[in-house]
Amino acid sequence: MQLLKDKILSEGKVMPGNILNVSSFLNQQVDIDLYNEIGREFFRLFLSTPITKILTIEASGIGIACITAQYFKVPVVFARKFMAKNVENDLFCASVKSYTHGLDYTVTVPKQFLNEKDTVLLIDDFLANGCALEGLVKLVEMSGAKLAGAGAVIEKGFQHGGKRIREQNVRLESLAIIESMDENKIVFK
Amino acid sequence: MQLLKDKILSEGKVMPGNILNVSSFLNQQVDIDLYNEIGREFFRLFLSTPITKILTIEASGIGIACITAQYFKVPVVFARKFMAKNVENDLFCASVKSYTHGLDYTVTVPKQFLNEKDTVLLIDDFLANGCALEGLVKLVEMSGAKLAGAGAVIEKGFQHGGKRIREQNVRLESLAIIESMDENKIVFK
Repeated sequence: MQLLKDKILSEGKVMPGNILNVSSFLNQQVDIDLYNEIGREFFRLFLSTPITKILTIEASGIGIACITAQYFKVPVVFARKFMAKNVENDLFCASVKSYTHGLDYTVTVPKQFLNEKDTVLLIDDFLANGCALEGLVKLVEMSGAKLAGAGAVIEKGFQHGGKRIREQNVRLESLAIIESMDENKIVFK
Repeated sequence: MQLLKDKILSEGKVMPGNILNVSSFLNQQVDIDLYNEIGREFFRLFLSTPITKILTIEASGIGIACITAQYFKVPVVFARKFMAKNVENDLFCASVKSYTHGLDYTVTVPKQFLNEKDTVLLIDDFLANGCALEGLVKLVEMSGAKLAGAGAVIEKGFQHGGKRIREQNVRLESLAIIESMDENKIVFK
């Protein structure tokens, strides 16, 4: 998606530790016009599948998932990263490794919001090692729902997440795949 | 907002500990049509103010803030609840008490995203004791930006947050104010 790639080139900053800082438009400050184009593009890519729900994970996936859901006219469900007091006990749970925060955590979604009648599209902002997305895939499998595929805004193609997800026969669409990056240059696939 | 009140009455569940569970449409599964009406209503209420940014706090405020931002055509900024590795060090920080999780936490926003030229609208899903919202008010004050006001989807009128916020001369608009609730009945103000 050219608009996204241009934005990454003009505003993205490569930080130590293979971190791509896109906080000025994607995951801390939101460029709402860009979000709309991202939603429209996910809709175009998955239009032929009868999606009934979009599943994402808190926190920064939520906005993109909500904007995307407007195009599909379906509800968004967000998986939570830890169990809060105000969630009932009847949850699907999957364990996830976090390299960003250096801790394992559990992703949960209430059983009432996903079932075998659903066809689910997964949406997230970043795909690096793919652990969060694999957690969402597991939640969908537990629910008996059909998995339509997954949409990631930015995939770090030099990490292994995308490969691992695709090897599971999940249809994965990433709007920008970064082949390599350093302080001077970002190269897309 | 009648549509919201009807939805709370038909799908909201009052749980032990004064918790209103509205996870089926507001803060875990998202009714995207309702979100759109909420965004439109916030726009109607704050239309006369030249808003330049919407500020919310992760996680469940993000979706509502993004949908609302489409009407105002302004960026959303979200405050984070803890410092993640991939955020730069130049942050506004305010301490917040959380009664939901029983822990104090720090809300942060990068200084680059708020400044004295901004007029900020705060958006959140729930207003109970008001601590999260007070944290956002502090962040806006630190930045030198003008505070247009705050929009909450649901206010628990029987707790003190709304009163405290209004006493600070913040224009607060809550789309549904709950005067009292128990397992059998929810009464709006």
